[in-house]
Amino acid sequence: MNAQTPYALKSYICGDWKAGARDGVLLRDAGTGAPVATIDASGIDMAEALAYGRASGAALRAMTFHQRAEMLKALGKALSAQKDAFHALSLATGATPRDGMVDIEGGFHTLFSYSSQGRRELPNTRLLVEGPVEGLSKDGSFSAQHILTPLQGVAVHVNAFNFPVWGMLEKLAPTLLAGMPAIIKPASQTAYLTELVVRAIIETGLLPAGALQLICGSTGDLLDHVTGQDVVTFTGSASTGRMLRTSKAIVENSVRFTMEADSLNASVLGPDAVAGTPEFDLFVKEVTREMTVKAGQKCTAIRRVLVPRAQADAVIAALGAALGKMNAGLPGDAATRMGALASHAQRDEVRARIRDLQADGEIVVGDPDAVSVSSGDPDDGAFLNPVVLYCDKPLSAKAAHDVEAFGPVSTVMAYDDLDEAIALTQRGKGSLAASVFTNAPEVAEAAVLGMAPFHGRILLGNRASAKTSTGHGAPLPNLVHGGPGRAGGGEEMGGIRGVKHFMQRTAVQGTPALLSAVTGRWIEGAPTRADIHPFRKSLETLQVGDQIVTATREVTLDDIEHFASFTGDTFYAHMDEDAARANPFFDGRVAHGYLIVSFAAGLFVQPDPGPVLANYGVDNLRFLTPVNPGDVLGVRLTCKEINPRENAEHGEVRWDCQVTNQDGAVVAQYDVLTMVAKTWPQ
Amino acid sequence: MNAQTPYALKSYICGDWKAGARDGVLLRDAGTGAPVATIDASGIDMAEALAYGRASGAALRAMTFHQRAEMLKALGKALSAQKDAFHALSLATGATPRDGMVDIEGGFHTLFSYSSQGRRELPNTRLLVEGPVEGLSKDGSFSAQHILTPLQGVAVHVNAFNFPVWGMLEKLAPTLLAGMPAIIKPASQTAYLTELVVRAIIETGLLPAGALQLICGSTGDLLDHVTGQDVVTFTGSASTGRMLRTSKAIVENSVRFTMEADSLNASVLGPDAVAGTPEFDLFVKEVTREMTVKAGQKCTAIRRVLVPRAQADAVIAALGAALGKMNAGLPGDAATRMGALASHAQRDEVRARIRDLQADGEIVVGDPDAVSVSSGDPDDGAFLNPVVLYCDKPLSAKAAHDVEAFGPVSTVMAYDDLDEAIALTQRGKGSLAASVFTNAPEVAEAAVLGMAPFHGRILLGNRASAKTSTGHGAPLPNLVHGGPGRAGGGEEMGGIRGVKHFMQRTAVQGTPALLSAVTGRWIEGAPTRADIHPFRKSLETLQVGDQIVTATREVTLDDIEHFASFTGDTFYAHMDEDAARANPFFDGRVAHGYLIVSFAAGLFVQPDPGPVLANYGVDNLRFLTPVNPGDVLGVRLTCKEINPRENAEHGEVRWDCQVTNQDGAVVAQYDVLTMVAKTWPQ
Repeated sequence: MNAQTPYALKSYICGDWKAGARDGVLLRDAGTGAPVATIDASGIDMAEALAYGRASGAALRAMTFHQRAEMLKALGKALSAQKDAFHALSLATGATPRDGMVDIEGGFHTLFSYSSQGRRELPNTRLLVEGPVEGLSKDGSFSAQHILTPLQGVAVHVNAFNFPVWGMLEKLAPTLLAGMPAIIKPASQTAYLTELVVRAIIETGLLPAGALQLICGSTGDLLDHVTGQDVVTFTGSASTGRMLRTSKAIVENSVRFTMEADSLNASVLGPDAVAGTPEFDLFVKEVTREMTVKAGQKCTAIRRVLVPRAQADAVIAALGAALGKMNAGLPGDAATRMGALASHAQRDEVRARIRDLQADGEIVVGDPDAVSVSSGDPDDGAFLNPVVLYCDKPLSAKAAHDVEAFGPVSTVMAYDDLDEAIALTQRGKGSLAASVFTNAPEVAEAAVLGMAPFHGRILLGNRASAKTSTGHGAPLPNLVHGGPGRAGGGEEMGGIRGVKHFMQRTAVQGTPALLSAVTGRWIEGAPTRADIHPFRKSLETLQVGDQIVTATREVTLDDIEHFASFTGDTFYAHMDEDAARANPFFDGRVAHGYLIVSFAAGLFVQPDPGPVLANYGVDNLRFLTPVNPGDVLGVRLTCKEINPRENAEHGEVRWDCQVTNQDGAVVAQYDVLTMVAKTWPQ
Repeated sequence: MNAQTPYALKSYICGDWKAGARDGVLLRDAGTGAPVATIDASGIDMAEALAYGRASGAALRAMTFHQRAEMLKALGKALSAQKDAFHALSLATGATPRDGMVDIEGGFHTLFSYSSQGRRELPNTRLLVEGPVEGLSKDGSFSAQHILTPLQGVAVHVNAFNFPVWGMLEKLAPTLLAGMPAIIKPASQTAYLTELVVRAIIETGLLPAGALQLICGSTGDLLDHVTGQDVVTFTGSASTGRMLRTSKAIVENSVRFTMEADSLNASVLGPDAVAGTPEFDLFVKEVTREMTVKAGQKCTAIRRVLVPRAQADAVIAALGAALGKMNAGLPGDAATRMGALASHAQRDEVRARIRDLQADGEIVVGDPDAVSVSSGDPDDGAFLNPVVLYCDKPLSAKAAHDVEAFGPVSTVMAYDDLDEAIALTQRGKGSLAASVFTNAPEVAEAAVLGMAPFHGRILLGNRASAKTSTGHGAPLPNLVHGGPGRAGGGEEMGGIRGVKHFMQRTAVQGTPALLSAVTGRWIEGAPTRADIHPFRKSLETLQVGDQIVTATREVTLDDIEHFASFTGDTFYAHMDEDAARANPFFDGRVAHGYLIVSFAAGLFVQPDPGPVLANYGVDNLRFLTPVNPGDVLGVRLTCKEINPRENAEHGEVRWDCQVTNQDGAVVAQYDVLTMVAKTWPQ
């Protein structure tokens, strides 16, 4: 990279890499101050970018969930192969290699995780069916089903500077899985790393055209053009978030707006976790880690350290000792334990916030104005050593619960009992994450119940999870990330929940036949077809609604007694007429539930080799009417849902199984789950 | 009621009925113009009302979901007993008795429905566990569980004038079920009916103090004091909604804001539903009904009537004939088929909007300026006869897709093919509800998939559901109500989904033992207890974690053959070694899945009468490892979840059942569902 003419970042818009119209703003290496790149997006037609993105949505929507999931996996693999280049550039952001792993490998993990969740938890379809069929009529002629379909707009993701890779991918993964295109707008300071990764993504050719656009620079008038089919997410400061949330088009069109703002996250040392316990040590280690990873520039970092009053001195001493070992220095230097802040501006900001925090507490560890580094130049780089404040009367404090220094800064607060600790966590007015270090189940229970309404995530730390805990500050793809109130009120990820943020939920009402036509699933009352036994059909010919109504079979007293002695299940309701009658649910001896389902299988199974390969499970089995000796059972088995796998010669088929008696009463209702071959010689 | 000094409505705040400080605004009978009441809430300390409500939340949160559900049912019963008084006053709002049923009985139905859903779908606990345990470590020492807890603030419900009873209860039911107190602010025009019902609610004494407050009049500075733990919902005009959404405290504190605004709902006559088909007739009937129920003052009413171009004349003629029979008149008069608008101001507003709509279409039925009534005085009452406009070129129309006349007014639009009809529905920029009248499954499928991203609810109408359809305009408690974009972007009801709007979702991470302490559920890895057989314990002594590890049993080839011949399930994988080996999932002959679960029951069941009364079902059964002849099975059965019923001598107990083989491999995993007595003599 030439220091005279640093690389001008480009935006990827409407399928082309475009430079801004003006000379860009210079971005400097956080550790050395050397020029890295310039950034500018002026002159780009943002309305056109939105329109292009929207038009491209059709290609994503034409793919199934599993196809999109496979795409995410392929993308993760392709990017992983280039991770060295990303790590090399990541150093310029001030991130150490360890910080870079959180950002880079952490981002790829999100792709892999969503890929795997998509294939495991979603059907291989284009629309999502949610919840049960809701019966709306006594005769079954009118019902409802909730469905989710991808929104037909663009997801605009406005991201923070601290995780240029993960911050993009944690939003992109659920967006693409939902079937929605995205426009990424990274924060300028570290946009060069995002740009490099986007270049790699585009070069894979794995995404349909238009599925991903990138704005390096200001979004200009983009947000003036969003509609109710678009989604806007924002990660960053609360003040910017408020501005975006109240912008005209977002308000007028009720645009879905997800905000994830920095919060005053607390970590609580339990009353039981006194000095000398493993939990005390884990707590000190975790606070130290949270203060220094990414130099404390994490929206989930621990800002408020709540400790029993009697432990305050010990905690401060231990933190002082641990933080003293966290050498600040050039991110690439082997001796460095903590990198630089993202910029000098950021350091000035953190120093100013520390002054605000001093209103409620005194500095007990560190000195914000005296920088000590183990490598690099303390003036060229945006270095800052960790600072701990102590607040003795946190219940009457204000700044300590309200001012965030987005760097290696935390305030230790003394509490007098657990209720007070809970109340103090709530003073944060809503946080992304909290943690409680305790080995006492009753402390864990009380703390979580008191803190939960104010938090999106709560981690319980103790000795038994010391080695496996993912840590206070780590958002995970399968857990919700976001918090109420000050944290922005948004919710991201959380597994498939996060996919639904990019889809519209619709209640569809109608006859079972019409609902089934819409969802592609058979439901009670929808048309059925009875030609050959459906177990003789491969996925090539099997259709939902294919049905077999079996012959019937009497259940005799001998059968029941035989089954009891064969299996050992001699429960009195099967064996003893008087005792059975005394049971509130039975009028006399009854057949075993497992006998009913066994006989049912005997009635519907096809013995010869065929396309149905295995019964791998049963869902929602309910015994609805007792079966007494002499009852005659029959089975109606109907193909309900077909899910061919993308990369196998078979797929899952779900069958509605209804066992009735001679009076037509349903004695058992359940789903039979089978693996069925895609093809089978006739 | 004395015409000289009409009744001054009071607010119910901090446990007292309070009058406003000023003379109130006069509210008049919609049909006669006679004074009904005055309304004013000035001088009331709104911050105090919020604080009182918040403090009272603890009493609601101390109740379980089932206790709250029982409370809703008792409330519904008590209010139903007084429905005549509500109906009598409802006439003053301009509502006919039929309209009143939608509002009054419809409101009670919401209470009963949420009560029944709460008891059926929620556990009898205080916190909600959502989704599966998320494993976060290979050794099982660290996991996560999502929980939901009631928000600790107040739900402020700002309601519309058109449904003074239902509008309150459809929000109150999920709010109270969640465990959150509410403040209701009805629209002034019809607040007297809401006030009467709130009086009845308070007099029942069924609600904890502070669970319900009422503001009759302006909310003053109430919304300046809301926090991130409060919720604000708004039903009404988009312009007011936007104002509330951008109010300072709501934005600064990321207050959850649910908006449900009027929308330009469409009804589509399918291309197949030509004149002479039952669907054509149903369509005309439904449009007529939607235009005239509540005199068209419904947020879900049909505003845009999309018909195949060739059917336009026939539709207009049929609508003209049907609407001609809808006599406007005094709501209480037997000959009246349509009541009055809520006020003269409302009629002026509707007339103005009709003029706007005339930019895109001509009036083809009715005359907004000539009122004809079958009873009452056309000038004293706010009467207006139905008006139909016709828009010939709807693709280029603007007002027709954007202007809502909130009264008996619709625009018929001609479309050329189904894709165009879908595009036209989307021009509404997001609607609460739409309907499609068709008897063709392929039309239903294409229409729903195209329209779903823009709609919260879509009704399919055809001959088979003619008698049972709940109708285009009826929101139902178990279906989502709300729509994207112009409709406000909110979501209400939808069964238990609606309850979650008043709860905070939190991901809790920790060891299984600590997670189990928090949720009250046993999960894999949490502590277990093995003293007496847990089936000998009633709910008095049974605890989650109580466990039995059974003796073992070998599965012999004889067992498999015997089971096959006994049940008739002679599937080749059980019977034929070579054929079984050819199957991709098996290495040779395997035991039947149903044999495994039958033997498992034989191992864990206690034969004698005891507190476990019945096995009523099985959930999530998966066969994970094939069982071959000679394998030895054992069962580990653990009490996982206990749900005592409020009004029975027993409760549901869910058991984790794990069947393993001689190598410790899990061959089957499932939940066994039992009914267990609350007490049992030792």
